[in-house]
Amino acid sequence: MSTFGQHFKVTTYGESHCRSVGCIVDGCPPGMELTEDDIQPQMTRRRPGQSNITTPRNEKDRVMIQSGTEFGVTLGTPIGMLVLNEDQRPKDYGNQTMDRFPRPSHADWTYLEKYGVKASSGGGRSSARETIGRVAAGAIAEKYLRLAYGVEIVAFVSSVGNVHLFPPTAEHPSPSTNPAFLSLVNTIDRKTVDSFLPARCPDEQTSKRMVDLISDFRDRNDSIGGTVTCVIRNVPSGLGEPCFDKLEAMLAHAMLSIPATKGFEVGSGFGGCEIPGSVHNDPFVSAANVEVPSGVAESGAARAGHPRPRLTTKTNYSGGIQGGISNGAPIYFRVGFKPAATIGQEQTTATYDGSEEGILAAKGRHDPSVVPRAVPIVEAMAALVIMDAVLAQQARHTAKSLLPPLKQTVNTGKPPVGNGVTEGSGN
Amino acid sequence: MSTFGQHFKVTTYGESHCRSVGCIVDGCPPGMELTEDDIQPQMTRRRPGQSNITTPRNEKDRVMIQSGTEFGVTLGTPIGMLVLNEDQRPKDYGNQTMDRFPRPSHADWTYLEKYGVKASSGGGRSSARETIGRVAAGAIAEKYLRLAYGVEIVAFVSSVGNVHLFPPTAEHPSPSTNPAFLSLVNTIDRKTVDSFLPARCPDEQTSKRMVDLISDFRDRNDSIGGTVTCVIRNVPSGLGEPCFDKLEAMLAHAMLSIPATKGFEVGSGFGGCEIPGSVHNDPFVSAANVEVPSGVAESGAARAGHPRPRLTTKTNYSGGIQGGISNGAPIYFRVGFKPAATIGQEQTTATYDGSEEGILAAKGRHDPSVVPRAVPIVEAMAALVIMDAVLAQQARHTAKSLLPPLKQTVNTGKPPVGNGVTEGSGN
Amino acid sequence: MSTFGQHFKVTTYGESHCRSVGCIVDGCPPGMELTEDDIQPQMTRRRPGQSNITTPRNEKDRVMIQSGTEFGVTLGTPIGMLVLNEDQRPKDYGNQTMDRFPRPSHADWTYLEKYGVKASSGGGRSSARETIGRVAAGAIAEKYLRLAYGVEIVAFVSSVGNVHLFPPTAEHPSPSTNPAFLSLVNTIDRKTVDSFLPARCPDEQTSKRMVDLISDFRDRNDSIGGTVTCVIRNVPSGLGEPCFDKLEAMLAHAMLSIPATKGFEVGSGFGGCEIPGSVHNDPFVSAANVEVPSGVAESGAARAGHPRPRLTTKTNYSGGIQGGISNGAPIYFRVGFKPAATIGQEQTTATYDGSEEGILAAKGRHDPSVVPRAVPIVEAMAALVIMDAVLAQQARHTAKSLLPPLKQTVNTGKPPVGNGVTEGSGN
Amino acid sequence: MSTFGQHFKVTTYGESHCRSVGCIVDGCPPGMELTEDDIQPQMTRRRPGQSNITTPRNEKDRVMIQSGTEFGVTLGTPIGMLVLNEDQRPKDYGNQTMDRFPRPSHADWTYLEKYGVKASSGGGRSSARETIGRVAAGAIAEKYLRLAYGVEIVAFVSSVGNVHLFPPTAEHPSPSTNPAFLSLVNTIDRKTVDSFLPARCPDEQTSKRMVDLISDFRDRNDSIGGTVTCVIRNVPSGLGEPCFDKLEAMLAHAMLSIPATKGFEVGSGFGGCEIPGSVHNDPFVSAANVEVPSGVAESGAARAGHPRPRLTTKTNYSGGIQGGISNGAPIYFRVGFKPAATIGQEQTTATYDGSEEGILAAKGRHDPSVVPRAVPIVEAMAALVIMDAVLAQQARHTAKSLLPPLKQTVNTGKPPVGNGVTEGSGN
Repeated sequence: MSTFGQHFKVTTYGESHCRSVGCIVDGCPPGMELTEDDIQPQMTRRRPGQSNITTPRNEKDRVMIQSGTEFGVTLGTPIGMLVLNEDQRPKDYGNQTMDRFPRPSHADWTYLEKYGVKASSGGGRSSARETIGRVAAGAIAEKYLRLAYGVEIVAFVSSVGNVHLFPPTAEHPSPSTNPAFLSLVNTIDRKTVDSFLPARCPDEQTSKRMVDLISDFRDRNDSIGGTVTCVIRNVPSGLGEPCFDKLEAMLAHAMLSIPATKGFEVGSGFGGCEIPGSVHNDPFVSAANVEVPSGVAESGAARAGHPRPRLTTKTNYSGGIQGGISNGAPIYFRVGFKPAATIGQEQTTATYDGSEEGILAAKGRHDPSVVPRAVPIVEAMAALVIMDAVLAQQARHTAKSLLPPLKQTVNTGKPPVGNGVTEGSGN
Repeated sequence: MSTFGQHFKVTTYGESHCRSVGCIVDGCPPGMELTEDDIQPQMTRRRPGQSNITTPRNEKDRVMIQSGTEFGVTLGTPIGMLVLNEDQRPKDYGNQTMDRFPRPSHADWTYLEKYGVKASSGGGRSSARETIGRVAAGAIAEKYLRLAYGVEIVAFVSSVGNVHLFPPTAEHPSPSTNPAFLSLVNTIDRKTVDSFLPARCPDEQTSKRMVDLISDFRDRNDSIGGTVTCVIRNVPSGLGEPCFDKLEAMLAHAMLSIPATKGFEVGSGFGGCEIPGSVHNDPFVSAANVEVPSGVAESGAARAGHPRPRLTTKTNYSGGIQGGISNGAPIYFRVGFKPAATIGQEQTTATYDGSEEGILAAKGRHDPSVVPRAVPIVEAMAALVIMDAVLAQQARHTAKSLLPPLKQTVNTGKPPVGNGVTEGSGN
Repeated sequence: MSTFGQHFKVTTYGESHCRSVGCIVDGCPPGMELTEDDIQPQMTRRRPGQSNITTPRNEKDRVMIQSGTEFGVTLGTPIGMLVLNEDQRPKDYGNQTMDRFPRPSHADWTYLEKYGVKASSGGGRSSARETIGRVAAGAIAEKYLRLAYGVEIVAFVSSVGNVHLFPPTAEHPSPSTNPAFLSLVNTIDRKTVDSFLPARCPDEQTSKRMVDLISDFRDRNDSIGGTVTCVIRNVPSGLGEPCFDKLEAMLAHAMLSIPATKGFEVGSGFGGCEIPGSVHNDPFVSAANVEVPSGVAESGAARAGHPRPRLTTKTNYSGGIQGGISNGAPIYFRVGFKPAATIGQEQTTATYDGSEEGILAAKGRHDPSVVPRAVPIVEAMAALVIMDAVLAQQARHTAKSLLPPLKQTVNTGKPPVGNGVTEGSGN
Repeated sequence: MSTFGQHFKVTTYGESHCRSVGCIVDGCPPGMELTEDDIQPQMTRRRPGQSNITTPRNEKDRVMIQSGTEFGVTLGTPIGMLVLNEDQRPKDYGNQTMDRFPRPSHADWTYLEKYGVKASSGGGRSSARETIGRVAAGAIAEKYLRLAYGVEIVAFVSSVGNVHLFPPTAEHPSPSTNPAFLSLVNTIDRKTVDSFLPARCPDEQTSKRMVDLISDFRDRNDSIGGTVTCVIRNVPSGLGEPCFDKLEAMLAHAMLSIPATKGFEVGSGFGGCEIPGSVHNDPFVSAANVEVPSGVAESGAARAGHPRPRLTTKTNYSGGIQGGISNGAPIYFRVGFKPAATIGQEQTTATYDGSEEGILAAKGRHDPSVVPRAVPIVEAMAALVIMDAVLAQQARHTAKSLLPPLKQTVNTGKPPVGNGVTEGSGN
């Protein structure tokens, strides 16, 4: 369906050629300051037309909050949001090539198979405009996570075609072991990422090579894919629901729901499958000496006296998730995007009914690579996953906190005095 | 939560040391012949102790249907199933190493952070026994899919450590372009896979190298990960729900919910991100001459006269899914498993409260590689995803079929005669 | 949450003083003709200001479809709809009585207890404008149900205060046994109901007494409640999900979610609790001679050759539902509405913080009885429940239809030939 | 489906003649002491055979916890529970009357219409044994609610046939205004109710008349319905989710999902529809002088320093719920049960296929009135509703508590100093 999340529920609507696209966010905590100004920046980052390597169409994409706030404060009731479509007229059917021939690797044909009705835009909701609602909702989630926990979510382009920021090497089959990678995910921020527009790859040389590669593909009326890496820092421990809704499962679900994605890997990822367990296991160490980041120290959780986790890990092959549950270390993952299906070149295809083969040439200029624009979408979906997991865990922790203390407890650091339970930091 | 699926809902329960593990399957179609004999084979394939490279514990894992069938026929009501735990006594807490020290990269610590209560087994539901309910439910889904559509689901081990069945090459960055791979996924069956026990890699030479590698790791009290590739053939077109529940998103969710998984890629996957769009796009061709597999020809859908898709694709970089919706071509994907966290070697870790560092040595013999045993679990989760999507699509198609025909339709193969809709094959 | 339904999902948003109120309908079958003209009539029937006994505020309430249709045909994608609020400015807080004193029996105080944030309108989403989204969504469901099955949903006012259309008598403790009642529910239509505006009670004399009673309460600046009876005819058999989502449970849920409701009874209702089982049981009789209503005969189900139920019941104490599942007989139920909390009289109350008691006098003219305006809301919620149940049952029936026929069947009309199953009409 | 609840999710399985009936409770807070002894008492109260006016079958109904606890403490993981069926053999089909003739007003026929498969017990999950899972789950919810908030849930029989504990009078059209009723609901406990076994009506004279009436019906091989009234005391304020999941809507849903129910009314109920608004509105008064019940004073919420509501109401026509949200006053409601469909008398009915009319005589002794046994089922379903609402509200409140305080607030008891928000007690 068109709903994501159990506690922070986002329901979206809208195609390319209807009046508006938008969403309803149900479950936003009440009492948070929120205006369009909190949402618009990510909307704008998502927007095409930001450079000469993205498509020159200039969509305005002004978000308008319809409900759920008053005087700039959330009421706790559903937040309706919408963005007007500028080109609202569905295209009339005619004897046009695109009406008769489904575009290769687009959703034209599968949408028709699914619904039995052909939208004028071909692929109906597979339009990139569908992601507008996600980004709007994600911006709200992000604001809460930052205020309550100091959570930081930053994505960047880690490869375009075969140009990689951290190419796999014999020494580092996965970037998880690469100190340069670990240093980057610990420090990267959005401002830095955007300073590398249009490629959004935070390395001058690699970025330049990516831009060259994309330009090259543009000139050939071709397209090329790539990958986006995302890090989520200052995540509270204890997030993720066993067994089907493990945190990495929700992240994978969220990321593979973004149009054009083909793969997801978390922590050491596919490279980690080649590393011995004796190396890959992350040893626990005391967190006593870990410096608390300023965003965390100023967060609501700190104000409320939430205890900090007593342990951390020396390495982070796990990518911040163990047994499906966050351990407080940075969560990082990588998402693969295929080359955009829309290309200016002529392509062979067949009519919808299979009676005739033919040639399809897409008109106009198209994004040779969607990867840089995917950055805020990846961030938004990550925020939605973490937000939902945070609310679930807050609920569990609060529910437990009202129970009488158990009679017998185990001090796990010292010899236990009886049967029973061990107290976690219980974030 | 512990529920998977919207229409074919599976809810599981159970830890390592409780009375039983099991599940409730809600939404199984009524009138299907079903007994324990349909379920047990996959349970047995999942079971440890199948060879000298898996753990020698011999769990019996006999599934017992509790409800939802009579005289071997499903009633349409919830199917309760359970498997008794042989070792039902939770371990008493004592001054033991494992009570004081969380095992590195296990769920011991994160479960405590999440629940604030320590299960005697450490990681609670992160136990491999949790997957029993999944496999039981998956076997039911599979039977339906086979009877109704001739669906075939086969998984196999595609790599262990750095031993790959289809190592990426310059020519084939993704196996999607490799004719040997495509031929294999078009024909492989479970019997063949199991003939390569214990490695379950359907290639004699590669299999042998994998067994050697695993033995090597066993001898060193170490562990090693790997990947499982799965193909789903004869999937009806039209499956997958825009926009958040795209078919690949549901598959990714399902696969990353399996313990120890680190990555998922569908179709061309991460390799596909490096292939030009002009190559990667799958041209449509008429399906008129495609031979109908015997399983499909004998399926309920064929008996009911469901139309076959009129188109297919010349290549299959998409992995059978376009715009989040199945196009009828084989769906294939790959899942990455990390090395098992439990190893016989000594490891440094810290006490739960961080007060002390120490050494943990796991006792007993452990699976040096979980990958071969993961094969039936991957198949089960794939079946659950497809089953859920099938029921959703059947519902949509039936709902539409009761509406009056639209006045104006577009014949998409010929010049259209007016505005309106185009008819898909509407599976 | 603000979502209703599992298959035909309606999510609403909006308060009194925000930009718009609206909803997203997810799961509408594709290929149905649909424009605003199908929806507006019920919106208008819901609107206040239809007579001198309803409030004179004249809200326009024009519904605007945002998405999900093209050229007047549903695409199967989410249908966004909205209605602009004319008075969009939240009321600034000042030293006003209503800011300090919660109105008795309103939601002012409980909303503050729930959200910890006070909306300017007091009760936030408890506003009657919240029902706009329900009515819009209900109109879509109704259209489908009529086209696919010939379903007819008609509600009318059955009592205002102590003026009852069918007052309980010793002979008829429940109207279920009253031939006049049964005849009415079998034949009543909306046009007839609206011919009795403003009371919407389809009996001239009773209607007049109701209008007099309401006028009397208006003159005294007081309010009065009443009941709405609703009948759903031509419902297919087999709707309703055991065990928690029985059809009457879903109807009760839906009706009690309408603002100001206090009670629900189905079929013989509370009166039926006093009738002996030997009388109350509804004997089955052959449906062979039952005339098929024209709406049913022309429905999609008839075109598709759905079998008609072979049985019907001689009496209908059950109200069309047995064991939580529809049996094809008319479903009828009654909903109780309390007197509106807003009255022109002065009332004692206390400040939010309990520090002071005081007097609150609501300004302006108010609806002395909300009951007549509730009629289209009851119909809408009934449509949503039936629509959701229809889609669930279509899915089940279709799923079953693709299974191989069972080897042994029982002909339940004749001596059985073996173990197994009996075939229902399987709608 | 067979799942109830969003946060405290109960999924049940089981028919009359399968191996066991049971449920999985997902979402129980971790760290609560829980053994079978907490659950069995309500199981036993539900059991038939408790007196000479209930059926003499003696089911044992011993509940067995399968998972989710260790050493008598909940782990936070799913709690599997089951009760063995003593008569596990499905009845073989033969040329028996009950195989050919559906029983009037049973679920035999509608189940067949729904599933197309006939269970040997006729009505499949409409069996009273299906309620076992509800009662087991309800007992867990109740324990939590008592420990965390001091919640008390007590139901009793308020009428059998036309014998009413509080018959409606001209003075008291609804018992809401009757001081005797209000005093009863404020004080009644389960021990007192059970001291009036077998009728469970807490009034000596009325109870005796009920027993006589039921005996009379038993002697005539007939059955009679009645009503159960339930009160929930010490409910925190703020429970219930606008707009579709109002607290009364969830209660109505829960109650109408119990087999044989025909009606639900909350607070003043249907009688309240006849009371003027000026009387029916509940004036707010300061709660400063309200004595805190001992159960509340000793609850986890009190220990955690949750503020008590600052207001209460002078009257309680609302039945503790306003705008769909609890206000802290006792919640009371009434549920109507029809006469049991199974009676010893001969009844006319028709064969499943309508080809023949015939006579059906149920064998054996049957419950002439299910109403007294329904008492623990009503309590269980009430507990599930409140539990789910509590967890939702705890989550919201906790989420809000981590946000920075708003800059401007309104002191609603005193002249406000600016725009913004008013603080509720925020339970």
